[in-house]
This record gives sequence, structure tokens and C-alpha cells, in this order.
Amino acid sequence: MPKRNIETFIGCDKRYDEANTVIFGAPLDTTTSFRPGTRFASRAIRAESFGIETYSPYQDSDLTDLSVFDGGDLELPFGNPAEALRMIEEYTKTLMSENKLPVMIGGEHLVTLGAVRAAAERYKNLHIIHFDAHCDLRDDYLGEKLSHATVMRRIQELVGDNRIYQFGIRSGDKEEFLWGKGRIITNKFGFSGLADTIEKLKGENVYFSIDLDILDPSIFPGTGTPEAGGVFFAELLEAILCVCRLNIVGCDITELSPVYDQSGASTMVACKILRELLLALKNGF
Amino acid sequence: MPKRNIETFIGCDKRYDEANTVIFGAPLDTTTSFRPGTRFASRAIRAESFGIETYSPYQDSDLTDLSVFDGGDLELPFGNPAEALRMIEEYTKTLMSENKLPVMIGGEHLVTLGAVRAAAERYKNLHIIHFDAHCDLRDDYLGEKLSHATVMRRIQELVGDNRIYQFGIRSGDKEEFLWGKGRIITNKFGFSGLADTIEKLKGENVYFSIDLDILDPSIFPGTGTPEAGGVFFAELLEAILCVCRLNIVGCDITELSPVYDQSGASTMVACKILRELLLALKNGF
Amino acid sequence: MPKRNIETFIGCDKRYDEANTVIFGAPLDTTTSFRPGTRFASRAIRAESFGIETYSPYQDSDLTDLSVFDGGDLELPFGNPAEALRMIEEYTKTLMSENKLPVMIGGEHLVTLGAVRAAAERYKNLHIIHFDAHCDLRDDYLGEKLSHATVMRRIQELVGDNRIYQFGIRSGDKEEFLWGKGRIITNKFGFSGLADTIEKLKGENVYFSIDLDILDPSIFPGTGTPEAGGVFFAELLEAILCVCRLNIVGCDITELSPVYDQSGASTMVACKILRELLLALKNGF
Amino acid sequence: MPKRNIETFIGCDKRYDEANTVIFGAPLDTTTSFRPGTRFASRAIRAESFGIETYSPYQDSDLTDLSVFDGGDLELPFGNPAEALRMIEEYTKTLMSENKLPVMIGGEHLVTLGAVRAAAERYKNLHIIHFDAHCDLRDDYLGEKLSHATVMRRIQELVGDNRIYQFGIRSGDKEEFLWGKGRIITNKFGFSGLADTIEKLKGENVYFSIDLDILDPSIFPGTGTPEAGGVFFAELLEAILCVCRLNIVGCDITELSPVYDQSGASTMVACKILRELLLALKNGF
Amino acid sequence: MPKRNIETFIGCDKRYDEANTVIFGAPLDTTTSFRPGTRFASRAIRAESFGIETYSPYQDSDLTDLSVFDGGDLELPFGNPAEALRMIEEYTKTLMSENKLPVMIGGEHLVTLGAVRAAAERYKNLHIIHFDAHCDLRDDYLGEKLSHATVMRRIQELVGDNRIYQFGIRSGDKEEFLWGKGRIITNKFGFSGLADTIEKLKGENVYFSIDLDILDPSIFPGTGTPEAGGVFFAELLEAILCVCRLNIVGCDITELSPVYDQSGASTMVACKILRELLLALKNGF
Amino acid sequence: MPKRNIETFIGCDKRYDEANTVIFGAPLDTTTSFRPGTRFASRAIRAESFGIETYSPYQDSDLTDLSVFDGGDLELPFGNPAEALRMIEEYTKTLMSENKLPVMIGGEHLVTLGAVRAAAERYKNLHIIHFDAHCDLRDDYLGEKLSHATVMRRIQELVGDNRIYQFGIRSGDKEEFLWGKGRIITNKFGFSGLADTIEKLKGENVYFSIDLDILDPSIFPGTGTPEAGGVFFAELLEAILCVCRLNIVGCDITELSPVYDQSGASTMVACKILRELLLALKNGF
Repeated sequence: MPKRNIETFIGCDKRYDEANTVIFGAPLDTTTSFRPGTRFASRAIRAESFGIETYSPYQDSDLTDLSVFDGGDLELPFGNPAEALRMIEEYTKTLMSENKLPVMIGGEHLVTLGAVRAAAERYKNLHIIHFDAHCDLRDDYLGEKLSHATVMRRIQELVGDNRIYQFGIRSGDKEEFLWGKGRIITNKFGFSGLADTIEKLKGENVYFSIDLDILDPSIFPGTGTPEAGGVFFAELLEAILCVCRLNIVGCDITELSPVYDQSGASTMVACKILRELLLALKNGF
Repeated sequence: MPKRNIETFIGCDKRYDEANTVIFGAPLDTTTSFRPGTRFASRAIRAESFGIETYSPYQDSDLTDLSVFDGGDLELPFGNPAEALRMIEEYTKTLMSENKLPVMIGGEHLVTLGAVRAAAERYKNLHIIHFDAHCDLRDDYLGEKLSHATVMRRIQELVGDNRIYQFGIRSGDKEEFLWGKGRIITNKFGFSGLADTIEKLKGENVYFSIDLDILDPSIFPGTGTPEAGGVFFAELLEAILCVCRLNIVGCDITELSPVYDQSGASTMVACKILRELLLALKNGF
Repeated sequence: MPKRNIETFIGCDKRYDEANTVIFGAPLDTTTSFRPGTRFASRAIRAESFGIETYSPYQDSDLTDLSVFDGGDLELPFGNPAEALRMIEEYTKTLMSENKLPVMIGGEHLVTLGAVRAAAERYKNLHIIHFDAHCDLRDDYLGEKLSHATVMRRIQELVGDNRIYQFGIRSGDKEEFLWGKGRIITNKFGFSGLADTIEKLKGENVYFSIDLDILDPSIFPGTGTPEAGGVFFAELLEAILCVCRLNIVGCDITELSPVYDQSGASTMVACKILRELLLALKNGF
Repeated sequence: MPKRNIETFIGCDKRYDEANTVIFGAPLDTTTSFRPGTRFASRAIRAESFGIETYSPYQDSDLTDLSVFDGGDLELPFGNPAEALRMIEEYTKTLMSENKLPVMIGGEHLVTLGAVRAAAERYKNLHIIHFDAHCDLRDDYLGEKLSHATVMRRIQELVGDNRIYQFGIRSGDKEEFLWGKGRIITNKFGFSGLADTIEKLKGENVYFSIDLDILDPSIFPGTGTPEAGGVFFAELLEAILCVCRLNIVGCDITELSPVYDQSGASTMVACKILRELLLALKNGF
Repeated sequence: MPKRNIETFIGCDKRYDEANTVIFGAPLDTTTSFRPGTRFASRAIRAESFGIETYSPYQDSDLTDLSVFDGGDLELPFGNPAEALRMIEEYTKTLMSENKLPVMIGGEHLVTLGAVRAAAERYKNLHIIHFDAHCDLRDDYLGEKLSHATVMRRIQELVGDNRIYQFGIRSGDKEEFLWGKGRIITNKFGFSGLADTIEKLKGENVYFSIDLDILDPSIFPGTGTPEAGGVFFAELLEAILCVCRLNIVGCDITELSPVYDQSGASTMVACKILRELLLALKNGF
Repeated sequence: MPKRNIETFIGCDKRYDEANTVIFGAPLDTTTSFRPGTRFASRAIRAESFGIETYSPYQDSDLTDLSVFDGGDLELPFGNPAEALRMIEEYTKTLMSENKLPVMIGGEHLVTLGAVRAAAERYKNLHIIHFDAHCDLRDDYLGEKLSHATVMRRIQELVGDNRIYQFGIRSGDKEEFLWGKGRIITNKFGFSGLADTIEKLKGENVYFSIDLDILDPSIFPGTGTPEAGGVFFAELLEAILCVCRLNIVGCDITELSPVYDQSGASTMVACKILRELLLALKNGF
């Protein structure tokens, strides 16, 4: 009998009940202030994932050996970020309560707040490792408290001082950097300081958020706010492998914007990062 | 002394105090459910307007003979449509109170609600002429009351039954058409019925809203939701000239999305429509 | 429990056993001689179908009232058109044997041969209605017998003389037109002659093949070989509604090439045609 | 022995000495005021011409039966329109002196001046038939006398009053239209008046210049200054067939700009127009 | 009262009389021999500059603390490079005479000649630091003396031997390199030799010209002639900070071509370079 | 007398009989499994080659000093890879028998098999140096033995164990890597091991195949399957110069896909690689 058209990220076709990891899309870009379009990321990542292999020669490991369920995309409302965050939080909570590791595909970076709310409720003393070009520490953006530009400020209010470790940061306004001092551990430009952070956070519960614009726009132009001077692919890959040795309780990749990716190369980078992330998480979960 | 870089729609460079018409941009696309990008429309229209002439051979009339001020774009918040509408309403009110005719460039179609609120407060018995591919009559969209897909429903609540005259409509869900019966005068597919409407509304105050996707996607592909089977340019031009014989108290053009307009032809169509609209309004105001 | 990510054409989410119509993709473009890319059509049509409504104001009818199953895409080999056709034929046969109406989404036009083979085996005296810009009547193309440019020649060999009715034809080499005389009923440029054909074929079994490049490139530029001078959308829609009054035993739409459709408007046209086709077929099956 | 890579417009592969018609490219866009790029037109037309057939079902005639030589592109300097025009004039003169009909592919419309200079020297009482969206009658453009926007003014100075017949004109500044009165026969918007013109010019020597932006941007978006409200393909085709019944001593097609033609459909339109033009000229020369 | 629509590079909104630095656009691409389009650079840079911050974490410094006036774009003629250069020279002279530092945004690289003429008249013993992929030392290009490919040859004629220091050069014809020996200090491929040059030119008056195609096309594809093997962003940034310790009397950035920058990343790179350049110049002026 | 339009790669305009090197295109992409389009590569490379110089400052050497004939493109059938390979083999044989070095421009990587068949017949003990992101060692792809994904497996069957040296490999399925052990010398990720290989193969006959997707997608996004983590341009250039010190009996560059190269930068990279390759081969042949 002809089969239904099920679309998943490559190699992630396990049933929900047999999976220990769940990927899902959060197609939100409602607060994007510059160029919207990240809502199309999760769908593009699934479609283009058939351009990569399930096997990683970096980790000598294969997605088909994992147990990952692809839950598709949440159906988020338009123009109501508060409600969208509530839905993301609820979905993440469900996964956590059923012992599935949530791996969210944004959307804009604001979606991280929904997932971190769920994680912070479940895991005391939660730490955040945050890869990004932008520090995202404003108090509001044109008056709005919920914004891609304020997401780490909101998360700081949730988890407290010195719980957020930022890497790759190369953009922000002066006030953000000033406010962050003593509250946020910001490592500018790249990954110096990462080894120490990994050492320090051993045994702790960590939420891992990757804004893909940490990458240099040469390899990742397909994003709303490309910011030159970023890290190269090999650096990011190595950093992800390091972080995944920690006890990761949730993670996300955000800010791919396929409409600005005419060559498709940015989407393919996101696919490869997601594959490597899933493989690296396997051992830690 | 070197001059500042003032950018206006071509031929619309009068001072505010000497102008009787004001164009301004409302770069909102926060509730767009399919493909965002109309926030870039007003800026693109200004930039590309230098590809057309100020003179219209259709009306034998010239923009440089009018008194139009270009107020630039409102700075609207992201992810908060209620606040954005409040700002549009307030700006429109100011213009009306100073006897300037407001001509708004969207943005998504929801922006019309802000301007109509101002118009409905000032002008009793307001009528709406609405050119569009979509009827925009839902009660909510994924739970949200403020949406491009609900804008005419919200306006109906404001102006009452049989005050909205729709033309060109060729898309909607079944419920919208059913609900509209007896409340909205919907003319499907084209402009049949327009002559009668013009006749009937003579002397009335009319707000004129043009969703540019009323045009066939062959001539206007650069929009979020292109819908085949639309009207051709010559038909739209003629219809606009007809409507502008009425007493127009405010108007808008919406839904150009430059990111889907690789050739630039859609933006140029919007420029030409705006020129013809401004020239046609001259006599009626 | 989180659900799997099932992707279907909008409104076509019935189960296989309850469906009387089955849509499926045949992502083949291996013999495309000019610009390949139609392999991406079925996927794009599903993804973009959420930009249209399930309801048609043309037919006052709704996809959600039909029973359509979306079987996804066949997994066809690359560089082996003979084997690909065999798989299409087999799948179509299965559907026909279980009393499902097959509606195939190409791919290049060669895919029609696979479906017609299945239809010709099951239905004696099969007739073909063929909408296209190109007559596709070559005997071979650079030596190859199986080609998008030879597909109607191969079908003629299968169904015999005067069984193929072509409409909209405006391109071919001299020999194709000469060979076709007395063998193929070719109606050049548009739909003149369609009413007579409908009259004549009442009660007969008809396979209906729509190469979307019958449309003028103004409304359908996103195809491998755009050919100016085509029919407009309203004409095609009306012609489809006429043909669907016949006893259609199978049909297809082919030759959308999303990579040449930067605005997305061509894909949206294909979506709307598919919706109208499915609704129009409902009464005839 | 392996052959050299000779590239011609499809079906135009005769030797120079056996040809009675010569096509050549004039890749000039140095005075383009809005969006440059027409320099790439002739090359794109040759490359994409293999997407059309040599046979025309409109004229039941085949390019392979003609004797056309493709001379490639002139190597014009950059930033020196006077010298470029001199080179075009010289090349055209050579062709005329050897009894070859010149068919030039622009480039911007200014190139026509070079060819007309050659024609006006050779043929007394030369008339011009000019298809265009723009009247091109300015005296100067930002101070420059040689410009795409002044080309018909310069030609008028060469051939005198009432020798230029314009069709399709829908853009210009007020002064151009005023100046044209009594000097230029301008037919606005379309081809009304063409039959009379053909009648009147029978037996006269006519240079025929087609600015492809006479076409509506729906079918021809790939041009520097798309101007809505143009003629459709079928209208243009018919008009060309009419004009070619006259004694054409030279002709050109100009203003394709491939960089704004993502779908390639505009280039294909230019190819088809060129094929039909060459076939239609056959009988008249 | 509603305000006029003034558009400036982000953070550069000071009045002319209070400014010590003036940025202005020179939208010239009339001699571009390969792919035109740099005329759109200054406008794109202004529009997209709102995607970066005014604050630089590299220099811990903010554009809002500077005094920069944005003079918009010069209105240059088309097809007359000599006149365009005269206008650039005149504008630059005016700025210099009123003690404003000129920062020009090209346009093709030829624009530098206009500004250097003004600088060379005012400052004796002027030196040029020239960042570029191409040496630009031809004597003429297809016969033309004024060309993007000859600009450094013309400047050499103005300032004399061994006054021009080139870095990053990786393209030119053989004759250019040969001619340059003993006349131009050419540092191939990168910035080796820069430290020595800085040391040597301390206290001298220096004009600083940055052709952005010195960058590798991976990070800066949006230019007319992308040339692989260029410098990376971090290298260019560091080099700019070094050069700005000298006594810079004028500078420019040239050769961004937005039409080849689908992702927008190249334009954003140009914005970031301009921000860092303005901040670095602050201390030296 | 006007000249024919001969198009060659820049500087490669020698006659066949005087040439010792022949470049030719093999526009095949019929087995491409992900995104087709490499058929357009050779044409694009010729057209865009005029954006580079004939002179290399890396090798201080000039194409105009070589003797290279450009044979244009083979006319390969569509959908029949076996026949296409036969034609490539035959053409290559002809060149080799007339003592011309073949330099083939793909097309997909499968084309290499045709050329290697010719080389393996002529040269005993042939070795292959293979630059690529993908190991291309599958036994079949969806049942097909002839595929871009199986090409090195087929070549191994031809030349035997330990004759193929791969560099830059970073993608494949698990089985490919396992099968390759003991049969293929695979150097993952980059060029470590190249110096030893060069040393070892001195004096041997070597076919050199460059799949351009060995490059990082940052510099070469315009390919069907961009794979992050590749080598940079400078690394590839250096590696090519090394390999060309060997006795190269044939070579190719493959997998440029111009349709995914909106900026044109990937095509320019291919042009530059081809120039450097031709110059480097000069000494070795």
C-alpha cells in the first residue's frame, strides 16, 4: 500500500516512543528587526538534508545508529511572541518529562527563551552556553521586552548572574556590554576561554544554544544579520564537540534564513552542524 | 554648503506646511503568515521611483505640479501589532487634523486598520473601497485577532454592515465568504459592479485601500501571497481613476514584497500606481 | 504524544484506504535537454500549497470535502529513464487496480509515458488530451528514444492514430508538425477546437496531461523552456473545467521548475491549478 | 579533427560571403541611467537561443532556410559613447556596402544612432519605425547629448521632421511630448495607427528599431526600466510581421538586461522575437 | 510636525557645520569593463547600515560619539567619466577647504582619481596607500585613458614615482607589473610590508584608497570582478587600523556591487568596514 | 570581412594543429542526484573567463605564451550516461593519439570515467590523483552503476588497487570508507600526505581529477552538493602546482554549477583554477 509522505531530517526516522532525542522546528521570526525569514529554516533543513550523508567522518559515527524522532514544526501564531514562547515551553516540557532530549531548530533566537524556561523549571542551577555573533542583552527593543535582541537578558533574569557563557560575540551596543559585566561571561570574537568553561561546568546541567550567525558570513551568508569576522566552520565544529562532552539538557540551532541563501550552501552548513551536534550529543545523554 | 541626503518618492519634495497630501511608510509585516518582507516596500518604492517619470501620459498631469510631502517611514515595533496600529492611527489623525490627505505605503494589509480607525473617528458614515485578491474576513488567524487575514473583519466591526465594497476578490476560506453575505459587498474576480458603486458613493466619505495583490502575479509577482487570476495593470489603472472621482479621505497601497521581486518590475508597478493615484487624487481633494 | 511530520498538498490528508484520488510526485528530469530542475516541483508544490486556500471561489467547492491521499514522491533512479518509467507505470497500475484516480506531479513531461502505459493497458480505446507549448513528437533526441521531446510520439505508438488531442502548441520542429498530420489532432496556439473535442469524447476514457508551459511565461516563467505566446491563467482554468467533465482515468501536471521561480509565483500557479483540477475531477470520478 | 567553438544564434551559421543578412551585437550600456546590464544581452541571446526551435509555426518558415551570418559582438570601449557609435556606424556601413542587411542586438537604445547614421547616409528619405515604451526625445540627460534618453532626438536631427513613427510610447517627461508635436509621429500605448503607417510607407526605405521594453513587464521584466502597461507578446509579433512587409534597410532589438531575468523568460522572448523578425525580413529583402 | 525622510549611514547624522568628517557617494560605474553595478553601492550601504551597531567592540568606540555628516550622493552624468571626475574633484576640494575629512563611497575605482586630484593640489608630497586585488596600472583600456583599469597609472602621473604603496595585489597583465617596477611599491597577495610602510610614512600626508575586492570573494562576492585568493576580513580590519594611525587626508571605499550580492553579506561587510574606518580615522584627524 | 563568433577560454585561441593542449567541455549532469546544473559549467567558464587576466602573478607566466586549443563542448545525449561516456572516451582517445594533452571541463564527476578509460588504455600503470569532498566509491546509486557517486569505484575496477590517491575527502557513507581500505589511498579533509604522494609518483603516468567541491563552500558555493569544511583557495592552488610537477597525461575540473552561483564568484574561481592548471601543466608536458 502506498505510504504517506513523512519528511524528517535525514536519518532521524525513529518512532517517538523509541527515541531518546527529539528534533522539532520553531518557525518564529516575528520580532526579527532587520530581515525576516528564519521561519523557513526547519523546513529547508529537512529538505536539503538529503544532500549530506548520515555518516560523519569526523566522529566516525552514523545518524542511523541513533534514536532520533523528528516532530516536525510547531504551529506558532503570527505577531504574538508571548503565546509562541508559551507553546515552545509547553512542548519542551512534555519532551523533558518523557525523558527525551529536545533539539530545537529556530526560527529567530527568541525561541530559545521558551525552551530555557522549560529547562530552568526542571533543572536547578542551569547554565547556558551561548554561541552567537550578537550579545542579545538589550532590555527592550523599540519598547518590546520579547525580542531576538533581548533574549539573553530575559534568560539572565531566569537563571541569574554568571550562568550564561557567551562565545563568538562581535556585535552589540555599548550598553549591552556594560550591563553584561559581572552578570554574563562574554568571550568576544571566538572560542578562547572555552576549554576552561568546559572544565568548570563538568557535571552541571547545561542548555546549549547555537545562533548560527556565530559563523563567518563567508560560510554562512544566509542569515538575517550577517556579521563579518566570525568563526570558521572547523572552529565551530570543534567547539561543539567539546561542549557536548558536558551534560546537555537541551539545545537549539537558530537564525538560518533560507531566503538569503541562493546557493543553498548556508542551509547545507546548518544540516551538517545539526548532524554533528546530534552525533556528539549521543554519548552525553 | 553640501546638502543632507533627503530621500522622497519622485516629485514629492514639498515642505510639510505647503503640502495638502502626505505619503508615509508603515513597514509592518509582523502578522504575515506566509512569506514576510513587505516591511521593505516603502523604502524600495522611494529608491526605484527614479526609474519612472513624474509626468503621466495617461492623465496628462505631472507630480511636480502637486503639493506632496513625503514623511518617510514610521518606526514601528516588532512583534506587537497592537502598538504598531496605535502609532499608525495617531500619525494619520495628526495629518487629518492638519488637513493633509494621508497616503500610506504598507507593509502588510493590517496597517489599513490603523488608518481607518483615524478616518472612522473623524468622518461619520465612512465607506471603504477595498481592492484585493483576498477577502481578509477571518475572525482570527491561529487565534490572533489582529492579522492581515482579519483586517476587513475588524474594519467591518468599526464601520458596520454594507460599508465595505470589495473588488478583485479571488481567495478566501468558505466561512469568510459565508460570513460576508449581507455584511460586505464582495465583487469577485474583477471590477464588475464598480461603476454602480462609484455612482452610489458620490458625495460620501470614502477610504480607499489597495492591496496590490489584486493584480495578476504576471505583472506583480513580488508579493507575499501571489494569487493567479488577477486583474491586469490597465484594468487597475482605470479603476483607480474612477474611484478617485469620489471624496477620498485616506488611502493606502500595501503588500509589495521586494525580496521576491528579483527583476524589480513589481516595485516599478507599485511606483507607477502610486504616481497615478497621487495625480488622480489631486482633483478630488 | 508529538506527531510525525507528514507533509501533503494542502487539504489532501486522507488515509489511503478512504481516498478515491491519489496524488504522487515523479521527480524525474534526466532527459531535460535545456534547463533541468523539475525534479524539485512536487516538493515545492506541497510546501507552497499553504499559501493558497482549500476553498475555490471559482467552483464553490473545498478540498477538505474530497478524499485525496498524498503518496509523496517516487524514489526514481538518476540517469536511467527506462527504469524510472517502469516504476511510474507500476505505481500507477497499483492505484488503478485499487480504484484510485492517479494524479501525478512531474517532473519532466516524459513521466507521462509511464502513467499512460498503465492506463492504456487497463482502458481500451484510451484517448489523450494534451495541453502543452511543445508538440513533443520527435522520433528521437540526440539519438535517445525516451525523452521529454519524444513523449507524445511514444504515446502515439501505444494508443494509435487520432487518439491524441493537443492544445496550445506553439513550438516544434518542422518534421514534428509534418509527421503529426493524420496521426495527431494538433490545435495550435490555444483552445479553439476544445468544445468540439469535449463533445466528441463524451463517454470515452481519457488520460489528461497538462504540461504547465502551455501557460504564457508571463504567469509561468518557472519552467525549463519558457515559450512566449501561451494561454493565460483564466483560459487554462476554464479549459480544465471543461475537460474534467469527461471520464478522466488519469492525469498529470508537469514541467514546473522551481529553481527558475525566484518570486515563487509559478509554484503558486501550479498549486492553484492542482487544486482546481482536483475539485473539477471530483464530479467526474 | 576537433572543431573550434563557434557560437551563433540558433540556425544562423552561414558563411559571411553566402549570407544576405548579418546579425551582430553592440554591447553598450554606458549611458544607461537607471540599471545597467544590457551589455550582456547579445551573448545571452546566443546562449539561450538553443531553447527555441529554428522553425516558426506562426510563419511556417525555418531559420535554416535563410542565409544569416552571426558576426559576434563589436568590441566597444567603456565610458566613451561617441567612439562606440563611430564603431557601430562603420561596421553597419561595411555591411550595407556589401549588400548585407544589418540586424543589430543591443545594448542600450543609444546604439541605434550608430546604425541609423550609416543608413541615413546610404538611403535618402529614410524613415524610422520605432517601437518603445519611452519616447527618448530629451535634448540632453544630465548635460549629455549622447544618451539612451536622447537617441530619437539625435535621430530626428539626422532625418528631419515627421520621419519617425513611434508606437507603444507610455513614458516620457512633459517637455518631450511637447517638443515631439509636429516633429515626431507618436502613437501612445499601443499599435493603433500602425496599419495606416504601413500603407503610407510602402516603397520607402525604413529603419526598424525595437526597444523590447515596449512589451509589458509581465512578459519582459528583464530590462533596465520596466514600464507597466505595455503591449503583449502576440500584439508585438503581429506588428513586427506587418512592419516587415515594408522595405527594411536595417533593424535592431535593444534593452534586454539578462541580469534582471532570473527565470530566463525575458531572454527567451528576445530569442523568439529575433527568430520571427529574421523570418519576416526574408521576404522583404 | 512630521519630519522629512533623511537617510544617512547609521550614526552619521551630524549637521554639516558641526562635522569634521563628511561621507558622500560617487555612484559611477561608466568605465566598468566586466559587470557594472557599483553605482548602487552607496545607497545600499546606507540602507543596510541599520543591520550593524554604531558601537565597535574592536575599538571600544561608537559612531554616535563622532561628528560625521552624510552628504548623500553626487549626481554624476552617465557616459562622461571626465565630467564625473571634475565634479568629484570639486566636491572634495570644497570639503577640504572647509576642513572636513572626505570619505568617499564608490562607485568604481576610477572615482579615486577625482578625490586624489583635489588632495594632490592641496597637499604637497602626497602619498597613496592603495588596497586592491588589481594593480590598475594600464595606460589605456580599449583606447580609453580614464578607466577603472588605469586609475593608478593616472594617479602615478599626478604624484610621481614611489608615492603609491599597493597591498593585496593579485591580478594584472604582465605589462602592468613590469611598468610598475621602480614607480610603484607593489606588495603582492597580502599585507606583508605594511608595518614598514606605516613606519616610513609617519608624518606624511596620505590618501587611503580601499578597493574592497582586496577581500577574498568568500567574504565579499558582491563585486564586479571577484578575484580568489584575497585577504580575510580580520586581516583587512587590522590593516585599516594600522593605516589610520597615519595622517590621512582623504579616503575611499569602492567596488561594492549590490546586484551581485543576493545574500546581502557583501553590503554588510562594506558597512562594517566603513564603521571601523570612520572610528579609526577619528584619532588621526 | 566580419569575423565569425569564436568563443574560447581566455588566451586559449591557438589552432588545433599548433596546440599541445586541448580543453573541451563535457556538459553532462544526468546522474546528479541532488541538484543538477553542471551542464552549464563549461559555457559559463568561457564567458566569465574575460573577468580574469591571462597572466598569473603566482607563476609569473602567461596563457598567451602557451599553445592551447579550445574544442568547445561535446554534444552529449540526455538520459544515457553510457553513451555519453563512450563519446568522452572516444574524443579523449583522439586527442591522446595526436599527442594533445586533454583538459576536460565537467559536468558532473562521472565524466572522469570516460577520460580515464582512454588514458588507462594508452598508459599502462596509470595512477589517479583525485581531489574531492566526496569519496565517490559506492557500488551503485539507487541501482545505477554509472553515477557521480560511483565514479571512483568504476575507476578502481579499471586501474586496480592502490592506484587512486584521494585528497580533501570529508563525505561518504560508512560502507564507502570501509570498502576503500586497502584499495584506495584516502587522505581525509585536506592535503596532508600530498608531498609523499608526489615523491612516490615521480616518473609515473598520472591522471589528475579535480572535483571543485574540494574547496570550502565559502569560496565555492556554486556546486550541486556544497560540503562545509573544505580546503581554501590558496591551499588548492599550492596543491595543484605540486601535482603538476608529475607526468600528467590527462586532467579535468568538474562540478561547477553556475545556476547556484548568483554572485558569479564560483565561476570566477573555476576560471582562475583552470588558468593556473594550464600554466602549471606547461612545464610538465
